[in-house]
Amino acid sequence: MAKYFEIWIQHLISPSPMTSTPPILYPRLLLTGAAGALGRVLRPRLKAHCETLRVSDISELEAAKTGEEVMSVALQDAQAVDKLLDGVDGVVHLGGVSIERPFDEILPANIVGMYNLYEAARKNGTRRIVFASSNHVTGFYKQSETVSPTMPVRPDGYYGLSKAFGENIARFYFDRYGIETVCLRIGSSYPEPKDRRMLATWLSYDDLERLVLASLSSPVVGFSVIYGMSDNPLVWWDNASAKHLGYQPQDTSAVFKNAIESRQLSLDLNDPAVIYQGGGFVKNAPI
Amino acid sequence: MAKYFEIWIQHLISPSPMTSTPPILYPRLLLTGAAGALGRVLRPRLKAHCETLRVSDISELEAAKTGEEVMSVALQDAQAVDKLLDGVDGVVHLGGVSIERPFDEILPANIVGMYNLYEAARKNGTRRIVFASSNHVTGFYKQSETVSPTMPVRPDGYYGLSKAFGENIARFYFDRYGIETVCLRIGSSYPEPKDRRMLATWLSYDDLERLVLASLSSPVVGFSVIYGMSDNPLVWWDNASAKHLGYQPQDTSAVFKNAIESRQLSLDLNDPAVIYQGGGFVKNAPI
Amino acid sequence: MAKYFEIWIQHLISPSPMTSTPPILYPRLLLTGAAGALGRVLRPRLKAHCETLRVSDISELEAAKTGEEVMSVALQDAQAVDKLLDGVDGVVHLGGVSIERPFDEILPANIVGMYNLYEAARKNGTRRIVFASSNHVTGFYKQSETVSPTMPVRPDGYYGLSKAFGENIARFYFDRYGIETVCLRIGSSYPEPKDRRMLATWLSYDDLERLVLASLSSPVVGFSVIYGMSDNPLVWWDNASAKHLGYQPQDTSAVFKNAIESRQLSLDLNDPAVIYQGGGFVKNAPI
Amino acid sequence: MAKYFEIWIQHLISPSPMTSTPPILYPRLLLTGAAGALGRVLRPRLKAHCETLRVSDISELEAAKTGEEVMSVALQDAQAVDKLLDGVDGVVHLGGVSIERPFDEILPANIVGMYNLYEAARKNGTRRIVFASSNHVTGFYKQSETVSPTMPVRPDGYYGLSKAFGENIARFYFDRYGIETVCLRIGSSYPEPKDRRMLATWLSYDDLERLVLASLSSPVVGFSVIYGMSDNPLVWWDNASAKHLGYQPQDTSAVFKNAIESRQLSLDLNDPAVIYQGGGFVKNAPI
Amino acid sequence: MAKYFEIWIQHLISPSPMTSTPPILYPRLLLTGAAGALGRVLRPRLKAHCETLRVSDISELEAAKTGEEVMSVALQDAQAVDKLLDGVDGVVHLGGVSIERPFDEILPANIVGMYNLYEAARKNGTRRIVFASSNHVTGFYKQSETVSPTMPVRPDGYYGLSKAFGENIARFYFDRYGIETVCLRIGSSYPEPKDRRMLATWLSYDDLERLVLASLSSPVVGFSVIYGMSDNPLVWWDNASAKHLGYQPQDTSAVFKNAIESRQLSLDLNDPAVIYQGGGFVKNAPI
Amino acid sequence: MAKYFEIWIQHLISPSPMTSTPPILYPRLLLTGAAGALGRVLRPRLKAHCETLRVSDISELEAAKTGEEVMSVALQDAQAVDKLLDGVDGVVHLGGVSIERPFDEILPANIVGMYNLYEAARKNGTRRIVFASSNHVTGFYKQSETVSPTMPVRPDGYYGLSKAFGENIARFYFDRYGIETVCLRIGSSYPEPKDRRMLATWLSYDDLERLVLASLSSPVVGFSVIYGMSDNPLVWWDNASAKHLGYQPQDTSAVFKNAIESRQLSLDLNDPAVIYQGGGFVKNAPI
Repeated sequence: MAKYFEIWIQHLISPSPMTSTPPILYPRLLLTGAAGALGRVLRPRLKAHCETLRVSDISELEAAKTGEEVMSVALQDAQAVDKLLDGVDGVVHLGGVSIERPFDEILPANIVGMYNLYEAARKNGTRRIVFASSNHVTGFYKQSETVSPTMPVRPDGYYGLSKAFGENIARFYFDRYGIETVCLRIGSSYPEPKDRRMLATWLSYDDLERLVLASLSSPVVGFSVIYGMSDNPLVWWDNASAKHLGYQPQDTSAVFKNAIESRQLSLDLNDPAVIYQGGGFVKNAPI
Repeated sequence: MAKYFEIWIQHLISPSPMTSTPPILYPRLLLTGAAGALGRVLRPRLKAHCETLRVSDISELEAAKTGEEVMSVALQDAQAVDKLLDGVDGVVHLGGVSIERPFDEILPANIVGMYNLYEAARKNGTRRIVFASSNHVTGFYKQSETVSPTMPVRPDGYYGLSKAFGENIARFYFDRYGIETVCLRIGSSYPEPKDRRMLATWLSYDDLERLVLASLSSPVVGFSVIYGMSDNPLVWWDNASAKHLGYQPQDTSAVFKNAIESRQLSLDLNDPAVIYQGGGFVKNAPI
Repeated sequence: MAKYFEIWIQHLISPSPMTSTPPILYPRLLLTGAAGALGRVLRPRLKAHCETLRVSDISELEAAKTGEEVMSVALQDAQAVDKLLDGVDGVVHLGGVSIERPFDEILPANIVGMYNLYEAARKNGTRRIVFASSNHVTGFYKQSETVSPTMPVRPDGYYGLSKAFGENIARFYFDRYGIETVCLRIGSSYPEPKDRRMLATWLSYDDLERLVLASLSSPVVGFSVIYGMSDNPLVWWDNASAKHLGYQPQDTSAVFKNAIESRQLSLDLNDPAVIYQGGGFVKNAPI
Repeated sequence: MAKYFEIWIQHLISPSPMTSTPPILYPRLLLTGAAGALGRVLRPRLKAHCETLRVSDISELEAAKTGEEVMSVALQDAQAVDKLLDGVDGVVHLGGVSIERPFDEILPANIVGMYNLYEAARKNGTRRIVFASSNHVTGFYKQSETVSPTMPVRPDGYYGLSKAFGENIARFYFDRYGIETVCLRIGSSYPEPKDRRMLATWLSYDDLERLVLASLSSPVVGFSVIYGMSDNPLVWWDNASAKHLGYQPQDTSAVFKNAIESRQLSLDLNDPAVIYQGGGFVKNAPI
Repeated sequence: MAKYFEIWIQHLISPSPMTSTPPILYPRLLLTGAAGALGRVLRPRLKAHCETLRVSDISELEAAKTGEEVMSVALQDAQAVDKLLDGVDGVVHLGGVSIERPFDEILPANIVGMYNLYEAARKNGTRRIVFASSNHVTGFYKQSETVSPTMPVRPDGYYGLSKAFGENIARFYFDRYGIETVCLRIGSSYPEPKDRRMLATWLSYDDLERLVLASLSSPVVGFSVIYGMSDNPLVWWDNASAKHLGYQPQDTSAVFKNAIESRQLSLDLNDPAVIYQGGGFVKNAPI
Repeated sequence: MAKYFEIWIQHLISPSPMTSTPPILYPRLLLTGAAGALGRVLRPRLKAHCETLRVSDISELEAAKTGEEVMSVALQDAQAVDKLLDGVDGVVHLGGVSIERPFDEILPANIVGMYNLYEAARKNGTRRIVFASSNHVTGFYKQSETVSPTMPVRPDGYYGLSKAFGENIARFYFDRYGIETVCLRIGSSYPEPKDRRMLATWLSYDDLERLVLASLSSPVVGFSVIYGMSDNPLVWWDNASAKHLGYQPQDTSAVFKNAIESRQLSLDLNDPAVIYQGGGFVKNAPI
């Protein structure tokens, strides 16, 4: 934030390179899950970085604006996904179930759908996918542990399991076919942090945008795994790989710290949701 | 092998503890995939370590012998699997597709079936599962790299992907419900090694039995991942976790080395099957 | 410091969450060693974060102010320490000998006293202790080495040995009884750095306060070991665990660099005090 | 054992170097704790490797044989310990309390006594100490974890704490005064393993002797930490540092495995004594 | 940059220690390669930190200014180099071939010359050398890998090989004779970054100066290896050792990012210059 | 040795695969340095594994036997080396100076000669080189440290420096041109160990042969670095990479231990030759 401020000061004095139009990164970019909370955040922001933005969801979507294409697609439908990827250069994949649900609700979009997506990317020559994975892939590490993307996964539910599967299929399609993926293990992306856990896991919407743009614009990403968090005072994750791709968060949960701690003074240290990084998710697996 | 020989010498001289009857480890043990190649190897050997051996497969099985129960079960059938685990104390899970196949053939038994198995274990109070995972979970590492079970997975196909999924669901059921699993990343279990790659990956049938018994009898296994190989001269895998559980291989591919090298003198170092640990699997993914 | 400055700018414009009253972290907080140099620094600052601040020392203390309780206690006196912990929710433990001394002067307060403190905490149900350990626990590493809290200890004298003992007893009481401790391996906490070594080891009084508050307020600390240094230009210690707890230093020894280097131009590279991180301490062990 | 066997075969055929008299390693060697269980094992065996064997204990000792000196010494008595080390070239230090006891019973011999020993060694010019530390220094690691000597200590009681203190004071006297120490974290040294835990932790008396001799005879030991175990089938400890010093165990708990498992079929996986490496010690800390 | 800005603000208000004259670090400092691009940058800047600045090159140099000495020396000339080091307290060694050339052109100055330099330093009692090594020492790592100075070298040509040789000879002269060296693996030091690779590798001239001064002024450097880069948004190198010595970059390639990306929108991911960190150098080795 | 013995026993009973003729690994194999001590050991042994054995040296060589070609070549002579590699499929490179000498005596054969060798291999299409590197590449590590091939080099003289250069040029030619090299960091290869240091570093002639054959016959070696030692009781080097290639030592210095220790009872622990792994070499650098 400080550096940004500095540059902004500098910008007041003289036109700087920062003020130049950002480059068009992709001719046609696909945003899946565009009707979800984060999809609605990213849709208008991604438009500036491509010529055509194709958006899809299984839920209803706002009508196409200039430079947009809208498609309604269920990820478990292989043929529809194949058509969805037609002519696509890059993908921001937010689609699928994004909360803990019974396994049979997770399976179609998050497991079969991931297979469909990568097969379609392979057939259509798509070069890079930014995949919204989740911190719940490692939710069963303790809050007192520092986790890095190279440590073994410890999913905290079926949702986390499906995201781990997604990361693995991405790894395979890179090793086998050269399709690049950045897996974003997103923490908690909300307008502001809601509780003490989110002092560590919060990802502001602006930082989410920075993270996705870094993933789309970095020259070489291969197969990368990054945690998605702002520049928060509590750091649970070793995120060197994020710096590697050029992600520089500029927001922080620090400004919410006193207010949250006053609201939520004491925690039950025997509560699994307090012990483990996954928070409430570690107790949610529906039976 | 040397130590074994030593003990055997000692045994000729005087009755030793080694000659005592091995302990009955489990009242009722389940062997899935009992009709497959390794299932047929293990079925008669496991009988000595349990009171009742339940065997299952989707293919036809030999009729039950004394102390055996035979069940025909498709792993993707949740209800059947629930019934299969009824009264079961431990599982040796060889079931499912064991070669590279198109994703839609892998999905039912190897992904949905794994979920069914662990749900059934949870409901029926089963304490430990020995899961036949595969070296193909890390098949996209190079043959010149030494791989350990804590390194990130690099599956070499849909089969490897499904085994990685199986390991992850096992991790989750241990973290969440305390069900212990030993994942055996089996190399190449055949009567003898067939080619130069198998000089590293070979697991003799006797060592397979030792590996499974160590996994069943070690007092505390938590969630463990082990490579399944004999005491071969080429060592691609750091298998300290196998020693941790008490696995001591006693066979070696060394005795086959000259014969194999004479048959297969030169290798094409540009062939992916020679470069990568997964061998031919890395080229097999059916499209 | 930059971020702080940024927020302060922001604060000039509009009331921000930073200006809200800080939360009361503990009903009753105990500060031991309150008559020492750092104790006198922290006593007024900790008051804002608890309802009652109990302060103790073996030396004479200033009379109690509103919201304070004053007790005179020798740490080697088990009964007195038991009484000292009565009704205490959290402890900032600065008590004991804080310089290199003969072993028989170190033993009572720093070894026996530590045992008394943790036993009393156990009996009285105290949940968390912030323990003033010392960089002298690892003082026999070289100044050219980067040390992290997980590396083996290398104490540079009896004082350092006693602090290592203190960390170990804290580890034991966490593993056995769940009492949380943050061990602060304090560098050199003075109004300003005095020599070239302190360009690396300096901890400003404001950063000391930030460090102690982070240790008291972080939701889950388990057993943590942190080095206590400001945001100095020379970094000898890998302090990722400090970020984990939310410590963000805002001072730096950089502003003193030129002045110190001009005063102390050349160093004798054969002097153990220059070679080792512990500085003069490595030569001090009294015989 | 195999290699030993091999050499023994070879020895039957022709006089080999192995049959030569072992070298006299030390003019005067001190064995403390000589009246304890392991002291009585080592006393006759160490005699062959020194000219004079001085033995000490606080308990009654057998009368001196040829080449022996007997002294009755309490380790907490600094003057007596100083005299004990007079003229001593090397020490095998088994003295002190060797089981879990209240802290005030541990303190005199195991903490004050260690200081007295190293001060006396420093004053008397003793070059090397073999210190009987204990696996209870890391007893709070889980049985499913592999522990190495460079990992942080996790003592399981006051006894383990005192051994960690002993290792640290040894580290200090090496860094400061060059006195070499080998810390032996002894597992379970008994005539034979008694339970399933000891299948991993057992150290036969013959291997104990080998371990002590390797520690005494290795040309350079600096400050070393080694786990003391036989060549057991279950391996909980990464003992590369033992190979570094030339320790080659030749016994194994494998020959007792079936008998022990038959006696102790099932374990309660919720029992801390089963979960943690320290076994029963983790529950013993006397209050 | 933010901190710098902060201090500068502070400086406007009151005279601060930062404004004091920087200390004279060395009585006589030698700068080799002074006629090269970086030599011309550093020559005027180093003058402030020594009493006498001796500059040398094989090419023509500007005439000596006050406090300067100018010498024309070929590094492969042992006698000349011996004379060059006469009376020298510290060296900034930029001399030698600084681009990829055939091996016989690299050998004289970069290999024989390095030997001459260290022999001369040994004979003349020089204490510290700052050696301009290069990122091409590790140029065959992929751009998707994070490299640290302790990882094995992977030179991308004869130039990189010669720099690896230089680092090794420096290591030897420190271990054997105590001569300290900081090896700077310089990225791309130009007025501004020229392409997408340099968004990661750029080192501004001001940061180059900061890096060299930190290397000259840090109290203890032993043998250190540092990457020379500004505070860029893409971070390929783990540069903790640079913090260890007090290097704090204050420039960033971020301000050039949009302009460069607009110019160089797409990259050929099959081009070795894009895959490997060494960029074009990996294709240059002249045959 | 034990396993070998076992197999030999087995061989007495029935013809085993071990008795089959070893495979012809290379049509034409080149042995350089064939007139040196190790060259004379390997020359007759390598003949069995190739059709034509070309041997070379700068010193006089025995006349060619059947299937041999003899060439007299100085390694610094690029044209002669080019001719030497003509038609060669694999190289065992023992050539060059093999002891510590002044730098100008090391340079021609060990540095320029290495360049000539790899250039000639590249031009002639040679696929694999087994390079006799040396433990002196890491001779400045202490004898109390365990060293692995991935740790930074610490050469103990000009000889060690030249071997480090050789390893680096091999790394480059693999990364750039795909020529495979196994670098053997040979310890002390003599008929028997001569002193206490060699209890760790000894490599018997039979094990040297095994090491070279494993390096020649392993299917994929890429760029590998291995320490060359027998199965000695003192282990200073983590040699997992040797197991990776299938090297199984069968001799041990253990049988010489008592005799050597009796001859060389006490060592001066302040002698660099005792402190460092390089032994006497660390004191030898000729000035």
